[in-house]
Amino acid sequence: MKWLVVALLTLAVGTLAKVNVYTVTAPWTYVCDSSNSSVGGHYVGARCVKTENGDDSTAVSLGACKLTCGEFGLVWPQPESMVHAQQLVNFLPQDVRFVSITGGDAVTNMVNKFAEIFQEYLFKKSPQYEYYKVDPFSGKPFISDSRIDISVTVTDEDVSLVHGTDESYTLEIERAAKSGSQDHLSVKVTAKTYYGARHGLETLSQMIAYDDNTDTLMIYKSAKVVDKPAFPHRGVLVDTARNYMSVAVIKEIISGMSYDKLNVFHWHITDTHSFPFWSQSIPQLPMYGAYSPRKVYTPQNIAEIVDYARVRGVRVLPEFDAPAHVGNGWQYGEKEGLGKLAVCVNQEPWQQYCVEPPCGQFNIVNDNLYPELGKLYKDFYDLFQSDMFHMGGDEINLNCWNTSTEIRSYLESQGKVGTEDDLLELWDQFQFRAGEEVYKAWGSRPPLILWTSRLTEKGEVDKFLNKEDYIIQIWTGGDDPVVSELINKGYRVIFSNSDAWYLDCGYSSWVGEGNNWCSPYKGWQIVYENSPRAMYRNQGGNSENEDLILGGEAAMWSEQVDGAAVMHKLWPRLSALAERLWTDPSSGWKQAEIRMVGHREDLVDRGIGADALQPLWCNQNEGLCYVSKA
Amino acid sequence: MKWLVVALLTLAVGTLAKVNVYTVTAPWTYVCDSSNSSVGGHYVGARCVKTENGDDSTAVSLGACKLTCGEFGLVWPQPESMVHAQQLVNFLPQDVRFVSITGGDAVTNMVNKFAEIFQEYLFKKSPQYEYYKVDPFSGKPFISDSRIDISVTVTDEDVSLVHGTDESYTLEIERAAKSGSQDHLSVKVTAKTYYGARHGLETLSQMIAYDDNTDTLMIYKSAKVVDKPAFPHRGVLVDTARNYMSVAVIKEIISGMSYDKLNVFHWHITDTHSFPFWSQSIPQLPMYGAYSPRKVYTPQNIAEIVDYARVRGVRVLPEFDAPAHVGNGWQYGEKEGLGKLAVCVNQEPWQQYCVEPPCGQFNIVNDNLYPELGKLYKDFYDLFQSDMFHMGGDEINLNCWNTSTEIRSYLESQGKVGTEDDLLELWDQFQFRAGEEVYKAWGSRPPLILWTSRLTEKGEVDKFLNKEDYIIQIWTGGDDPVVSELINKGYRVIFSNSDAWYLDCGYSSWVGEGNNWCSPYKGWQIVYENSPRAMYRNQGGNSENEDLILGGEAAMWSEQVDGAAVMHKLWPRLSALAERLWTDPSSGWKQAEIRMVGHREDLVDRGIGADALQPLWCNQNEGLCYVSKA
Repeated sequence: MKWLVVALLTLAVGTLAKVNVYTVTAPWTYVCDSSNSSVGGHYVGARCVKTENGDDSTAVSLGACKLTCGEFGLVWPQPESMVHAQQLVNFLPQDVRFVSITGGDAVTNMVNKFAEIFQEYLFKKSPQYEYYKVDPFSGKPFISDSRIDISVTVTDEDVSLVHGTDESYTLEIERAAKSGSQDHLSVKVTAKTYYGARHGLETLSQMIAYDDNTDTLMIYKSAKVVDKPAFPHRGVLVDTARNYMSVAVIKEIISGMSYDKLNVFHWHITDTHSFPFWSQSIPQLPMYGAYSPRKVYTPQNIAEIVDYARVRGVRVLPEFDAPAHVGNGWQYGEKEGLGKLAVCVNQEPWQQYCVEPPCGQFNIVNDNLYPELGKLYKDFYDLFQSDMFHMGGDEINLNCWNTSTEIRSYLESQGKVGTEDDLLELWDQFQFRAGEEVYKAWGSRPPLILWTSRLTEKGEVDKFLNKEDYIIQIWTGGDDPVVSELINKGYRVIFSNSDAWYLDCGYSSWVGEGNNWCSPYKGWQIVYENSPRAMYRNQGGNSENEDLILGGEAAMWSEQVDGAAVMHKLWPRLSALAERLWTDPSSGWKQAEIRMVGHREDLVDRGIGADALQPLWCNQNEGLCYVSKA
Repeated sequence: MKWLVVALLTLAVGTLAKVNVYTVTAPWTYVCDSSNSSVGGHYVGARCVKTENGDDSTAVSLGACKLTCGEFGLVWPQPESMVHAQQLVNFLPQDVRFVSITGGDAVTNMVNKFAEIFQEYLFKKSPQYEYYKVDPFSGKPFISDSRIDISVTVTDEDVSLVHGTDESYTLEIERAAKSGSQDHLSVKVTAKTYYGARHGLETLSQMIAYDDNTDTLMIYKSAKVVDKPAFPHRGVLVDTARNYMSVAVIKEIISGMSYDKLNVFHWHITDTHSFPFWSQSIPQLPMYGAYSPRKVYTPQNIAEIVDYARVRGVRVLPEFDAPAHVGNGWQYGEKEGLGKLAVCVNQEPWQQYCVEPPCGQFNIVNDNLYPELGKLYKDFYDLFQSDMFHMGGDEINLNCWNTSTEIRSYLESQGKVGTEDDLLELWDQFQFRAGEEVYKAWGSRPPLILWTSRLTEKGEVDKFLNKEDYIIQIWTGGDDPVVSELINKGYRVIFSNSDAWYLDCGYSSWVGEGNNWCSPYKGWQIVYENSPRAMYRNQGGNSENEDLILGGEAAMWSEQVDGAAVMHKLWPRLSALAERLWTDPSSGWKQAEIRMVGHREDLVDRGIGADALQPLWCNQNEGLCYVSKA
């Protein structure tokens, strides 16, 4: 057998055209070692072992071994519970049909849209998927004898997607019949909402792998998954203001998020640097503030992105960061007779007025500012219709305000000298007035999100912010006492602690020498092990309060990234975040490593430019890329 | 004027289809501040300042400012000498013609091939370049009244590309005539070799920028460049064995290299992990050693890559690393009755037998090994026909040999016990015998390259390696005394010191916790300032020996990268390396920063996924992203 293979290889070199070199099988098979023995002192669970095998007819492909060897196969994030048969059924993408959708018109419409995406997943699993679709000789689609019939049942006809939307689902694969040598499988996905059902289909897609021994796909002959997320808020912040990212790139990010069951695309759409949000009410903002007339998000772009995300189970949560992190764009105020809407804009030397160039903060004592904000917030509401609104609120530089003519005059008129308390009071007034404008724009009182800041410091937060109105996003280190302070006081929180979930860290500095401020790079292991509940417990937190932890987000600040490299900086680290927030496993990265490395290959097959974590050898020789325990 | 623009913006939001929103001009112009004043205490040279401007008709685009403001415009790496007019000529890509090529048939053929690449550059400069090519109404190419006629003169008809090939060129742009409102320019590129002329055309392409005020391209009305490289060897190592990279990705890398005038693609094609090189003589090697039958480089692939590189002025330098860094693939020996060709293959626990999993070293006492090596080297010669051959030679683990049955038996038969000296002697014999096989395969004595290793340690190197035969590639830290040791003893060296030019550093560890061994990440500033000559001088080096420094290479080891992310890990840091090796400026990164940030945008325009170094704001507000001097 071996010699035949060698002969084929040699022949292929010589002739090329006739022999399909890709179908030559390497002399390997993959054997599952389910003894759960430890490797180098680490428990790694069941693992696939690459083993020499002279006989093609008994070879097991890596995909087949990965599906069956571990408890969770290739499903990422790990479901709450999953059982599966050891037997697999081979099939072609064309054998899969959606035979029944129950749940009302709106749900049916959404499921049908996602069914198309699902079909594409199947073709992308195969290295020759274009070839797969149609028989080049007959011009007809290939069909095997297998059949996989999918039924989707959703009980709630409401397809709105908000914080707390039920995302649970159950998934069952059963053998319905056997016809000839092939199988007929019945797949049932049941969920309360469309969004749960979508997650179920996502899981189903990850129970399918490519079999390079037969050039077909494989799925479990039977399986059952019962699943729901550990946290309702699982997201990523993407900053499109320091550097612009195209609509195509944003869609790629959202696609990738949906593979990992992440559900919040937190869009930090504007900042001091640029204003790409094309406000319909105030088009002067992008005109003055966008990097170029091409680097904008039109209302049409945004509507398209919001729709694209919703089908994939992702909410788009807009942030308009203020009163710092504004600048370019707001120059229009003086032209329009509104006075200075922002102060310190591009002011030098920047170190005295802001945390990074360029500077800029709202002129919060200018009464003309608030109606303008109202118009802008209304644009945000009209386009995003989000159930929450992120108001930013980080990194205010009090010196900027205290040295600007407008604020100084105001303070003097009030008989004040500009103490820290004076300035905090002004800031607090801004927050109140701006918040009222948001409520007007929404016609309701959506939860407002703010970053941790001077206003949320220990012992201060309840002076400034009402816990019923505000959710706090934590970006300090995970061991900052603000964590327990906020939760103990009853504030809802979202974790984005910079020591683990800031994905922009570790690159070279962009203002000066050395590496950037939050270096080193946060590896996937650190991302994975960053547990919000554990951080709170480590500060003596009370487990009864843990429901106040809504979840978390990784942050992709974009001072040093744009569309050219963002995908690989996000993935596969976002996958690590996703398992922390969906599953919140009690185990650590070592137990997840084999699955992580396999999942990364799945992401790449789907076109996500996820970075490589290890040599491919480690994926083919599971558990062997380890460090011995000391 | 401003209000008209606002009206257009608003209209565009409303109607979309009819109005081309992209032609709306933002209210900015760019003014050159050539006072060379310092910013934040740093001298940054002439710089473009984004300035408000109500009048479109007088606005200067960022591209126009960048071309004219500094001494070297957007040319990267910085030429030896360059002068240029302050006046620019606007034109369309179609206006450029190659009117004369002098230099014999082989040269003409090469220039014609590169002329096509050059034309593509022009189209890629424009954001709407597809649209540009043909008038959608008439179906004919757009033509303006401008004409740019390029003449290329090469004096040497020989088109072979080897170490030391003359790469110098001169480039002159002159105004030949004025026809109507437009200009007729004559461009003359003169060089000794095709490769010098290609560099000249590369420089020419970087003297052209996009003018977003007129939607055309711009070039200097007159200019002169005289240029040649500081070092003959300017390269990058790409490892395709830890992770495979596709032929398409390798071509992308080579294209990017040619933009930066890098001339050596050092192909670390095999390693212990996998053997993707499809040897025609020993097809068992890829069959056992490739990650999959799809992850191989066929002879056709390699021929295609070598040709692709040569047109772009890049030599492909193959490395077959031995006697360590071999393993998977070599299992075939025992099947063929040749005995074990490698020992310690995939041996555990790996820590005892190699530096990273999986292990493997040649069984250097097996006489059957050498004829096999001879066949393999012949395959390398046939495909690459390189003027040098890299034999690797790094990271030998003496314990592997000393504990393997085969080597122990041999040592005992020689009455030896396996001291370090015994093992070094065996290694040295391997190197001699393997070297002889290379000479046989080449039919000549090409220079052999080896990595620094135990054989090149202080006081040892001349015991083992002859300086006439061997070039040493330095991968230790730049302050390792081996630097002056080698150069003082007359060895030719190539710098790849890991503390600056290892581009894989700073990511998470792949065997265990924390970040990888050579962390932190090497920012472009560190890459830029890593001067081989300075490192030698810092060790008291003698300037008369500096010609022994052939140049340097960045290393992209691929344990944690593959095609998904390699482009952005290479660029723009490779550009920093390129300027160090082409120009070897006495100034540091601060003086290069403005040009670097602009060059990165040019790379992205050409489709190179170079990472972002700074917010785009810094590119539009030159010199303002700085840290004050203490």
